[in-house]
Amino acid sequence: MNIIEIIAKKRDKQELKKEEIEYFIKEYTKNNITDYQASALIMAIYLNGMTDEEITNLTIAMAQSGEMLNLSMLGKNVVDKHSTGGVGDKITLILMPIIAAIGIPVAKMSGRGLGYTGGTIDKLEAIPGYNTNIDIKQFIENVKNIGISLIGQTMNLAPADKKIYALRDTIACTESIPLIASSIMSKKIAAGANKIVLDVTCGSGAFMKSEEEARKLSNRMKQIGKLAGKETICIITNMNEPVGYAIGNNLEVIEAIEALNGKMPEDIKQIVLELGSYMVKLAGMGENIEENKKKILENIENKKAYQKLIDLVKTQGGDIRYIKETERFKKAQFIFKVISQKEGYVKKLNAQKIGEISGDLGAGRKTKEDKIDEAVGIILNKKTSNKVQVGEVLAYVHANDEQKGRQAVEQIKEIYEIVDQKVEEEKIILGII
Amino acid sequence: MNIIEIIAKKRDKQELKKEEIEYFIKEYTKNNITDYQASALIMAIYLNGMTDEEITNLTIAMAQSGEMLNLSMLGKNVVDKHSTGGVGDKITLILMPIIAAIGIPVAKMSGRGLGYTGGTIDKLEAIPGYNTNIDIKQFIENVKNIGISLIGQTMNLAPADKKIYALRDTIACTESIPLIASSIMSKKIAAGANKIVLDVTCGSGAFMKSEEEARKLSNRMKQIGKLAGKETICIITNMNEPVGYAIGNNLEVIEAIEALNGKMPEDIKQIVLELGSYMVKLAGMGENIEENKKKILENIENKKAYQKLIDLVKTQGGDIRYIKETERFKKAQFIFKVISQKEGYVKKLNAQKIGEISGDLGAGRKTKEDKIDEAVGIILNKKTSNKVQVGEVLAYVHANDEQKGRQAVEQIKEIYEIVDQKVEEEKIILGII
Repeated sequence: MNIIEIIAKKRDKQELKKEEIEYFIKEYTKNNITDYQASALIMAIYLNGMTDEEITNLTIAMAQSGEMLNLSMLGKNVVDKHSTGGVGDKITLILMPIIAAIGIPVAKMSGRGLGYTGGTIDKLEAIPGYNTNIDIKQFIENVKNIGISLIGQTMNLAPADKKIYALRDTIACTESIPLIASSIMSKKIAAGANKIVLDVTCGSGAFMKSEEEARKLSNRMKQIGKLAGKETICIITNMNEPVGYAIGNNLEVIEAIEALNGKMPEDIKQIVLELGSYMVKLAGMGENIEENKKKILENIENKKAYQKLIDLVKTQGGDIRYIKETERFKKAQFIFKVISQKEGYVKKLNAQKIGEISGDLGAGRKTKEDKIDEAVGIILNKKTSNKVQVGEVLAYVHANDEQKGRQAVEQIKEIYEIVDQKVEEEKIILGII
Repeated sequence: MNIIEIIAKKRDKQELKKEEIEYFIKEYTKNNITDYQASALIMAIYLNGMTDEEITNLTIAMAQSGEMLNLSMLGKNVVDKHSTGGVGDKITLILMPIIAAIGIPVAKMSGRGLGYTGGTIDKLEAIPGYNTNIDIKQFIENVKNIGISLIGQTMNLAPADKKIYALRDTIACTESIPLIASSIMSKKIAAGANKIVLDVTCGSGAFMKSEEEARKLSNRMKQIGKLAGKETICIITNMNEPVGYAIGNNLEVIEAIEALNGKMPEDIKQIVLELGSYMVKLAGMGENIEENKKKILENIENKKAYQKLIDLVKTQGGDIRYIKETERFKKAQFIFKVISQKEGYVKKLNAQKIGEISGDLGAGRKTKEDKIDEAVGIILNKKTSNKVQVGEVLAYVHANDEQKGRQAVEQIKEIYEIVDQKVEEEKIILGII
């Protein structure tokens, strides 16, 4: 086998064989295939596409390119959850304790954020003392003891995916459905899941801008799951505006804690109920989705999910006083109000732009080495379809730099699109695939 | 400007602006753009194509990426000639002395061969003493004094083309008409030509396998020439079988010398007359092609072209006794006959395969560092359409390794396709564009 022939095949729109894909992934991981050869192949895949079988073979080859986490000791239905990302997305922090409270083991590795928002791991680390870097033995032990552990990627999972992902970024090949689908699924498979629920976000703040694209990606991932023997459900969710009201690490953790205390914004509630009820179903704990939703609501109301969060934080070394008294979280030095100069209804609130402003305040990182400022961010006061009066607060800017804060205020003003006509609420759950 | 945006544009089938192409070439030459980014862009160009304007801008940017030879002191109509390559192609050695004899200045830089045959420079170096590596001042001086100089690429011409050419080879992007056209034309423009005659070879021994492809390439190059202000004529010639009878460096030089002495194989004659008459036309020395052909034949018959070859070799330090007495050229140790076991007509004689066998005998090089064996090669005795009797010689193998020689004999036997029906002669000149 020879990489030039493999590139030529894909260049000529031919289907690559399993062995050819395995050869590419194996040799590229070992640096026996150069970046420029991988680059040509990736561009050819971008332009000529891949069949479901090719994508599945690519996914499995990438999953097997490094260590594979074995979670079989936790039972045969280990359900993982993943989101394709968005702004203000703290769903994992809320949903996973609920799932654990219901009695489904939660053993989840999450990533750090790169871009304008922090990832789940960054948010967990906002809780003083919380250790995201425990070893695999302890990780499994924690799940056995309390039913849940959330950690960072402490294993060398899918290194081929890491290499290809980094390369795609520099050669304008990020927005390719076969490559996105295989990247997501390879990490999930390497992380030991055998059932997967995916939150496929869609809209201005998501990678997939249109519902059509989100459906295509979902169909591809569901198909990979099927061919790879990992049952997969995709929930397409609206990411035109941020999820919930808080954007920024400490602010989002506080919103998550409050949600588990019963104060859950409507959009978060819908997403948690939908994803959660399908996780319960895949785990074999309930066939009826409506019943599962009731079970989730019960576990919030009776505080079992909240207690599970406390157990989790405690077990991982975190200071639970922060969970019990959220006012302990460090506040930003400046809190500015964004005041409406118009009367009307909020028509649009571009999630990506809100994310960028939050990133500029210091809530995100541009390179792996950047340090996140946990205190800064934005609290929205008005969201799409809300009525607004002149002089009312649209949002609060939490800044540690006065000038940046004032700039953010001006920018946010511009992003709120306020119109005279009444605006309908946006649908949150757009589809289940 | 930003290379990722440029890649994305071409990925999306958009036309690149002149400044974008210049930016890519300039920064890639300086290694500020990585090979993997160039690779992605090249694959996108391969798959999505380029307009004539884009190809012209690419060509000019590549020509300007290094030194540019200025030949304006030789007059305003400096005509260059280039062939897209083939097996047994010694046309430059025959044609250029003719052109010089007619009074048109010949200042030509040629390349070495990589692959199964030597290039013009390798063939010139087969003449003992001939110096292909003289400096540019002396090169110009020689042209002024005797009307002709043929040397190697002593200047840093079109380094961007060298980088892209090497990269294409490793990423299955050699067979792209925009990239081939710009590669050829950029070198010609950098080498100072302002009128160009191209021998676009076509058939089993050429890069372009079909006449359709050769026409496409010709149209593209003619268009580049027009847009770049360098009048260009393409002559499409048949390369299904080798040119002339000799393949191998010394053997080809001898055939070239004999051709200038009046013993010119029919296919060589047709190519020389066609290319030559258009060169005379472009040089402003004769509008009428038939008249120009007569002029060429006169200059062969009156030995002026042969004398020009002697002047050339002498001026460049070569031993002219080899030209006058071709038996001085070193012979191979073994000469084997390939004997026909069939009676009939030669239907096919695959040029590429003959080239490969000659290469295996040592006449070519696989890497830049390989040394060519000047004495080895093949002399054909029968070509397409020739009648053959059982026991007649089809070809002679010149080898310095007995085993390789015997192997070549067996291989050549297989390549001669002999049929019962009469076979028509192939057309040599397939088109003029």
